[in-house]
Amino acid sequence: MEDIPDYLPSASNSVTLRLDIRNRPGMLAEVTSVIGARGGNIGAIDIVRANEDVMVRDITINARSIDHAREIVLEVRSIDGVDVQNVSDRTFLMHLGGKIEVRSKTPLTNRDQLSMAYTPGVARVCEAIADSPEDAHRLTMKSNTVAVVSDGTAVLGLGDIGPEASIPVMEGKAQLLREFAGVNGFPICVDETDVDAFVDTVARIAPVFGAINLEDIAAPRCFEIEQRLKERLDIPVFHDDQHGTAVVAVAALINSLKIVDKPLEDIKVVIVGIGAAGTAVTHMLDEMGVDNIVGVDRQGAVHLDRDDLDPAKRAYAEVTNPNGEDGELSEVMEGADVFIGLSGPDVIGIDDLKKMNRDPIVFAMANPRPEIMPEVAYPHVAVMATGRSDYPNQINNVLCFPGLFKGVLDCRATDVTDGMKIAAAHAIANTISSDSLTSDYVIPSVFDQHVVDRVAEAVKEAAWEEGIAGRDPVHSR
Amino acid sequence: MEDIPDYLPSASNSVTLRLDIRNRPGMLAEVTSVIGARGGNIGAIDIVRANEDVMVRDITINARSIDHAREIVLEVRSIDGVDVQNVSDRTFLMHLGGKIEVRSKTPLTNRDQLSMAYTPGVARVCEAIADSPEDAHRLTMKSNTVAVVSDGTAVLGLGDIGPEASIPVMEGKAQLLREFAGVNGFPICVDETDVDAFVDTVARIAPVFGAINLEDIAAPRCFEIEQRLKERLDIPVFHDDQHGTAVVAVAALINSLKIVDKPLEDIKVVIVGIGAAGTAVTHMLDEMGVDNIVGVDRQGAVHLDRDDLDPAKRAYAEVTNPNGEDGELSEVMEGADVFIGLSGPDVIGIDDLKKMNRDPIVFAMANPRPEIMPEVAYPHVAVMATGRSDYPNQINNVLCFPGLFKGVLDCRATDVTDGMKIAAAHAIANTISSDSLTSDYVIPSVFDQHVVDRVAEAVKEAAWEEGIAGRDPVHSR
Repeated sequence: MEDIPDYLPSASNSVTLRLDIRNRPGMLAEVTSVIGARGGNIGAIDIVRANEDVMVRDITINARSIDHAREIVLEVRSIDGVDVQNVSDRTFLMHLGGKIEVRSKTPLTNRDQLSMAYTPGVARVCEAIADSPEDAHRLTMKSNTVAVVSDGTAVLGLGDIGPEASIPVMEGKAQLLREFAGVNGFPICVDETDVDAFVDTVARIAPVFGAINLEDIAAPRCFEIEQRLKERLDIPVFHDDQHGTAVVAVAALINSLKIVDKPLEDIKVVIVGIGAAGTAVTHMLDEMGVDNIVGVDRQGAVHLDRDDLDPAKRAYAEVTNPNGEDGELSEVMEGADVFIGLSGPDVIGIDDLKKMNRDPIVFAMANPRPEIMPEVAYPHVAVMATGRSDYPNQINNVLCFPGLFKGVLDCRATDVTDGMKIAAAHAIANTISSDSLTSDYVIPSVFDQHVVDRVAEAVKEAAWEEGIAGRDPVHSR
Repeated sequence: MEDIPDYLPSASNSVTLRLDIRNRPGMLAEVTSVIGARGGNIGAIDIVRANEDVMVRDITINARSIDHAREIVLEVRSIDGVDVQNVSDRTFLMHLGGKIEVRSKTPLTNRDQLSMAYTPGVARVCEAIADSPEDAHRLTMKSNTVAVVSDGTAVLGLGDIGPEASIPVMEGKAQLLREFAGVNGFPICVDETDVDAFVDTVARIAPVFGAINLEDIAAPRCFEIEQRLKERLDIPVFHDDQHGTAVVAVAALINSLKIVDKPLEDIKVVIVGIGAAGTAVTHMLDEMGVDNIVGVDRQGAVHLDRDDLDPAKRAYAEVTNPNGEDGELSEVMEGADVFIGLSGPDVIGIDDLKKMNRDPIVFAMANPRPEIMPEVAYPHVAVMATGRSDYPNQINNVLCFPGLFKGVLDCRATDVTDGMKIAAAHAIANTISSDSLTSDYVIPSVFDQHVVDRVAEAVKEAAWEEGIAGRDPVHSR
């Protein structure tokens, strides 16, 4: 399957070349055809300046990878009459100096403004909060602020790269909270991997935050960290890699089952990859009434007779695999209705799909290369989804966390419960009306502007029904 | 001295009244004269709507205190033909939902932007930082971000009001960093007063910050916290209550000494209040060559023969009071050239001023009521300064910390040294040219736009000379 590239050319691997091009007819066409022949997509061509001899142009090229971009640049350099002045990596340019900033909501240009925002006026606000600590939710940024917390141990697919190297992801998350939901997010990158020390640190800096988003923390440590912070703090704590992924995958599943007309209660689900996300998807499906879930790790099906299970996997085995299925992935695929992959590239093939029940649903979410490439799977499945943006049905956490945090902050929820997550999944699924629903459209686009508000409303209503909201849904709109 | 009000009417104690006023000639004049007779200053009068019978007006009134504002409102309520619909406290209105927000520096409205700021593009930036951690200063917000850290134990003059109640001050500080210096500040309000735990917490969350501003932490704990964080972290740590106050007081002193024509080396300085700020002022003056400093606490002059000194005060006694002066404040005022008050109201009187050397310099910085009221002191002193904005010569930390943090971030300093603080003090002092310098103008206004850049430049140059800057001053402009 090597002929299918991992990624199509994309802006994430784009460079802008500043070229001195000899000013004669046909030169630009020569440059663009060289770029095209090497597989680069041209995004934009701008004239910087021109004279009789030379045109200076900026050409932006989307490549499949940065190595691919370098190959294209080498090729452009070899064109007679073209001089490459400068190559800039657009992704790095965007990151210079960071992607977020802290702004004042009011100007401080005169004495009156200063005396209200700072001393002496601020003292009265401090006293009000000292008298009634709950007022911090009203009179400070706590009302609309989420800590985006990581220890840098499981960053994207890069693994344990440390807290500094995780900052760009946490900044990106904060950008998404602002741009999609109008919520403040701030990166807290903790230089400590011991569970006790990590939990203490986050708990101690919690006063200014209205909610905690845990991010990119390795399993199984992430489970204990989340559990202990939930118990210790009176604000919602949400590990996005677990529950964000679960909510969106379940949303896609709800819609997929409508297409194939199968009830949740009757399906058999095989889940490959029992880390943070796999465990959370399993838990959520179990809560929603799916009885037959079989988890699979590198050693095969997870069941109670295995003697190599760590405590987290043993707990997993206790609530899954009701028929005690044993063996490799290909064996437990027999009769499955749904395959959910949260593992690595190419772990299943066409033979496995053929063993599944009628109208197979396949969510192959490994990134960048899925458990099975969509081109391969399409002829054999009813619904196919991936984590990638360049195929239909992208299962992307961005559909959940902005709306979820907006919801919990608006209603001052003290926790995020299973009921709230299930409500969020239904809200995402229901964004697609029944007459729009097709096998290529089981999950809305991340740019669908209805999603955030619907998720927020659903989360608020669920919180209020469960009695953990400080304000009712109507008044927190 | 009870006839001198602690504060003149100010926007910090202002209310906006929405009034239904019977629509007949003379009514508004009656309202405004009642407000004026009770000592309120009218800031603005707006018409909301009007008909034949009633004018609805918003009247903004600056009062001396909120109790004073309430008295005025009561009086307005008693006017025949006036109905008070609503009273809003402008300071509280400004604080609703917090005073700062986190913004994205770029929009995320399409797939290209998202794929560069977030996955998959962001992974390449994370990898670059993992390979070369120093790149976090270039490719993340760390390059321009200060943690504003408090435990809420010594907030303004309010004392130990806890971390939640300190948030409005920390947000105010973050606003000032943004509005005055273009720097990101973020409140870290730590729910922990144990020194070890506090230091661990701040050190663990340091990766995303380029500098640490400690704020409103009680003495003597603040000294150990600052010292240990400076040793542990490779970014600058600066306790503003100590050093910010010291830098600005020293700047005022540099200019005051020009007016009375006395060299630093020859003066006797009496400092009342040996807490965070008093200790830092003393240390800075000592570094600059002032030999005769006498510190005074509630028990009188601090000297080595006293047996009631805690370790911090004993260390203080070892480097001050070279002549072993003993006794109450009024005794050590004999022959002093400079009085610096960082204590409480009315601790000195005219008799004390008369004991001072010719041309006394008096900095009475207790807030809101100084050690001696300016009206009382003026006939007996050469230069008078306070911490208040309603008298000339306000010694305000805002003159130092925005420029200082801009400077250390721009040049990637790894510390804040005595030399950098002294450079900042000279930069502030030199903002006033010699021909503008008068006894009423020894320190620039907080709204003087030259101050920030001059302080930043001076700090950068000093850091570079001391070899603790990551970038030279020219290239960090």
